[in-house]
Amino acid sequence: MASFPSDIEIARGADIKPITEVAAGLDIPADALLQYGHYKAKLSEPFLRQTGSRDDGKLILVTAITPTPAGEGKTTTSVGLGDALNRIGKKTITCLREPSLGPCFGVKGGAAGGGYAQVIPMEDINLHFTGDFHAIGSAHNLLAALVDNHIHWGNELNIDPRRIYLRRVVDMNDRALRHIINSLGGVGNGYVREDGFDITVASEVMAIFCLSRSLQELETRLGNIIVAQTRDREPVTAAQLKANSAMTVLLREAFSPNLVQTLENNPAFIHGGPFANIAHGCNSVMATTTALKMADYVVTEAGFGADLGAEKFFNIKCRKAGLHPNAAVVVATARALKMHGGVGKDDLGQENVEAVLQGGENLARHIRNVKTFGVPVVVAINRFHNDTDAELAAIREVAAEQGAEAFVCTHFTDGSAGAEDLARAVAKLADSGASQYAPLYSDELPLWEKIRTIATTLYGAHDIMANQKVRDQIHEFQESGYGHFPICMAKTQYSFSTDPDLKGAPFDHEVPIREVRLSGGAEFLVVVCGDVMTMPGLPRVPSAEHIGLDAEGNIVGLS
Amino acid sequence: MASFPSDIEIARGADIKPITEVAAGLDIPADALLQYGHYKAKLSEPFLRQTGSRDDGKLILVTAITPTPAGEGKTTTSVGLGDALNRIGKKTITCLREPSLGPCFGVKGGAAGGGYAQVIPMEDINLHFTGDFHAIGSAHNLLAALVDNHIHWGNELNIDPRRIYLRRVVDMNDRALRHIINSLGGVGNGYVREDGFDITVASEVMAIFCLSRSLQELETRLGNIIVAQTRDREPVTAAQLKANSAMTVLLREAFSPNLVQTLENNPAFIHGGPFANIAHGCNSVMATTTALKMADYVVTEAGFGADLGAEKFFNIKCRKAGLHPNAAVVVATARALKMHGGVGKDDLGQENVEAVLQGGENLARHIRNVKTFGVPVVVAINRFHNDTDAELAAIREVAAEQGAEAFVCTHFTDGSAGAEDLARAVAKLADSGASQYAPLYSDELPLWEKIRTIATTLYGAHDIMANQKVRDQIHEFQESGYGHFPICMAKTQYSFSTDPDLKGAPFDHEVPIREVRLSGGAEFLVVVCGDVMTMPGLPRVPSAEHIGLDAEGNIVGLS
Repeated sequence: MASFPSDIEIARGADIKPITEVAAGLDIPADALLQYGHYKAKLSEPFLRQTGSRDDGKLILVTAITPTPAGEGKTTTSVGLGDALNRIGKKTITCLREPSLGPCFGVKGGAAGGGYAQVIPMEDINLHFTGDFHAIGSAHNLLAALVDNHIHWGNELNIDPRRIYLRRVVDMNDRALRHIINSLGGVGNGYVREDGFDITVASEVMAIFCLSRSLQELETRLGNIIVAQTRDREPVTAAQLKANSAMTVLLREAFSPNLVQTLENNPAFIHGGPFANIAHGCNSVMATTTALKMADYVVTEAGFGADLGAEKFFNIKCRKAGLHPNAAVVVATARALKMHGGVGKDDLGQENVEAVLQGGENLARHIRNVKTFGVPVVVAINRFHNDTDAELAAIREVAAEQGAEAFVCTHFTDGSAGAEDLARAVAKLADSGASQYAPLYSDELPLWEKIRTIATTLYGAHDIMANQKVRDQIHEFQESGYGHFPICMAKTQYSFSTDPDLKGAPFDHEVPIREVRLSGGAEFLVVVCGDVMTMPGLPRVPSAEHIGLDAEGNIVGLS
Repeated sequence: MASFPSDIEIARGADIKPITEVAAGLDIPADALLQYGHYKAKLSEPFLRQTGSRDDGKLILVTAITPTPAGEGKTTTSVGLGDALNRIGKKTITCLREPSLGPCFGVKGGAAGGGYAQVIPMEDINLHFTGDFHAIGSAHNLLAALVDNHIHWGNELNIDPRRIYLRRVVDMNDRALRHIINSLGGVGNGYVREDGFDITVASEVMAIFCLSRSLQELETRLGNIIVAQTRDREPVTAAQLKANSAMTVLLREAFSPNLVQTLENNPAFIHGGPFANIAHGCNSVMATTTALKMADYVVTEAGFGADLGAEKFFNIKCRKAGLHPNAAVVVATARALKMHGGVGKDDLGQENVEAVLQGGENLARHIRNVKTFGVPVVVAINRFHNDTDAELAAIREVAAEQGAEAFVCTHFTDGSAGAEDLARAVAKLADSGASQYAPLYSDELPLWEKIRTIATTLYGAHDIMANQKVRDQIHEFQESGYGHFPICMAKTQYSFSTDPDLKGAPFDHEVPIREVRLSGGAEFLVVVCGDVMTMPGLPRVPSAEHIGLDAEGNIVGLS
């Protein structure tokens, strides 16, 4: 497949339709659109309000096995499935996260699908898009500026400058900003203190943005962000700094979902994109709930593997937004399962059915885990060109043992035609009424027990552990009225355990909790297990070096 | 006038037209617009290319006396004049700078005109608008990340980490970021060094964005940004870091001018907004040159008083972009002239003709200065409600002594009807062919002499001075091939001198040069005289505290 075109070549060759036409297919009138050029639009607030009374469509989650360097193709499968559902006559909207700008210039390239399963215009979606992330960064950094400004002008709230939890953000991979000292240079610049920047997607503002159902809720939750503690260890919130109303103003336009299209001109909402470690890793509730009012089927994805992404989708997003998922798709590839079965990256080209079966443990546990939430599962086998029939049969075997059907998909090379079987099965399952979705734990379960439940039920751990300081802190949060919060696990995405090198389906391990952080506005307790990177760096040769405009003004080098 | 409505109330009450209608009035077809909602649009690149062959309209600069806390109303007058020209049947476009987001949350409030002379939608224009400043910030910060990344991965270019000149930017008033130490926290975070943030409008990327005539020129100039020196004191450029192509990609969409409308539905381009101290303080060349192709008259403004704004408009922007201004308007107010005449802020309410006449020296010198460039001048007296007839007559007298007509304008309260006389005079002057515009100095004049020419001819100084280090540096730039660059003076806007307390028209003073900075991409030498603030702070009670959404979702508190 040496001559297979690049993602951006395919995207540019697409027969893209004016977004007004795509909207018309959803019975959205042109005046309900806030257009951003010809191919992107936000839905107007008045229109969003009037959709509230419609019936909901069926909600389908696309999740995946534990990621490996071999890739699994979760976004690609979400797009391919959405197109295939439309192809078989099911009115479907695909809901995705917005890509972060920073990583585009690093290793990763874009995040708008790939091959013949993409959302377009991919250049726009991967770069500034409709400005949502810039708005989120501005709102966050306004709050950060107000914190230091408050201290500078007398610190009436008695903020302890050593206990400021709010960092600053920028949508760029910039390791130099991970840890800084700010306010140097004299009296006029404030009080010197330690600080640092996260990438914008790691902002609590992003998580709040994605979990709020109205601008009013957004404003309230923003006000609940705990930015610091006082000298007496009392929490200081954004509301005490009178910051949350202005922050909401900065987010007002961004808050409406963005409508774009797939390569096959089917509608997609791309809106919000919180980190999947220190946040919940799903597109906005606004996009999902709006899509459910406008289509019979909604395909959405969650970050990382199902142990993180699906777990948080069910335990945080669905719980909080009152969503009832009807089916789930777990994406697997033969290559990735071979890696889970112990094959090195250089040997992935050779058939190894044994390794697929052994690595299949990983898939099997993810299927079981999703079923734990009462949601029925289908497996999508995202086919690579040198997968063998025997390997694919092995994956079907693994899935069947867990009571799940598996379908070979070739949407990357064939578009919707390559995911028709998957689509039929998903639609059937979603329509069957088989889903009996329920979160894994109740609101009332104590925080410590919630963490333990996730680790033992889903990760195969025998227990969780933490030092006394962390235990005390969890106890304190429990006693301070945050006991009803769900848990947001921040652990490596590369293993069910906290050791990224433990592939497959490790069991009987212990999950050590390094620290806990309260996201008062996002309303979850972040449980940090191991190192969590909230500001990526650029590689030795950043892809920025190869991104540019050609003679006709087209963007090249964005993959 | 206790009941005079606020700017945002007036703006919200406007009979705003779809931007397609405003465009149609300029014979711009709907498919040449990239809409951002219903009331903002960028012009498409193909359309911009095809306008190149048309004849140019007349170019009118709006500048002002030396600013005082009493205010002068330069943007308001630009908008009022543009509306008034349209009112008397002259097809006119007004070109303005984009406001910076950061100051909106500080003291200043918005910057989209005021009263009945505003551009709308003012909330959008004052906040994210079409995302241009976010794009500029991203491009700048990508370059900054690439600098530290280069050093981290081996520093092949031998960058001296002590001599990195590129700071980072954020569009926020955030004093805590003025001086920082970055890359703390261990090996993985790079080499610890001093750094700092400027507000986005102070970025050299912004200046380049506003001076470039094509994306190709933009890319070339971005490549010429000098980010650092090597250990051998050789300049290191953005092109050497292979950053400028990706930066151009980030700016591609932003580079097209933004079309909006005034309260009277007349067209306005609002595009770019560089600082007027360390940069040239004018809207983009793209906006001005495009407007000249589409209207018979183009009204544009320049930052600060005429000593800085008009000087740089003529010596930098017009020189570099091949523009030929046909007339200039100097805005003055009785209140501000009284302050120049020695009246304190609390006594401005009382008639004081003597003070107006004495402060008139300031106006007189600005008129003479503009005429030095061969451009004919009209004075706009921006009337405040308690100005007396005798005071206004005194201003006319001052202007007349310099051979300039002066017109009392009430566009703030009356819209275009309040600036009709001014408009007639301006149109007549622009049509008269009287302008014999030429820059103040030739490209060939040595850098030191260029600085001296500005100071002695325009500021009333008897000479410039600098220590040996600064002289050596200027000499070095002269010898290194930068001698043909124009000068970008960075001095206080509050006085012709470098002492902000010297009001009126001080003469025989000396202009001390504190440092010089080469803007290799913007192609000018920044000459810093006194303290220059490139990162504002927030006040004790930031306006952010009062900005929010009302029950109907409208923005309140933005003035």
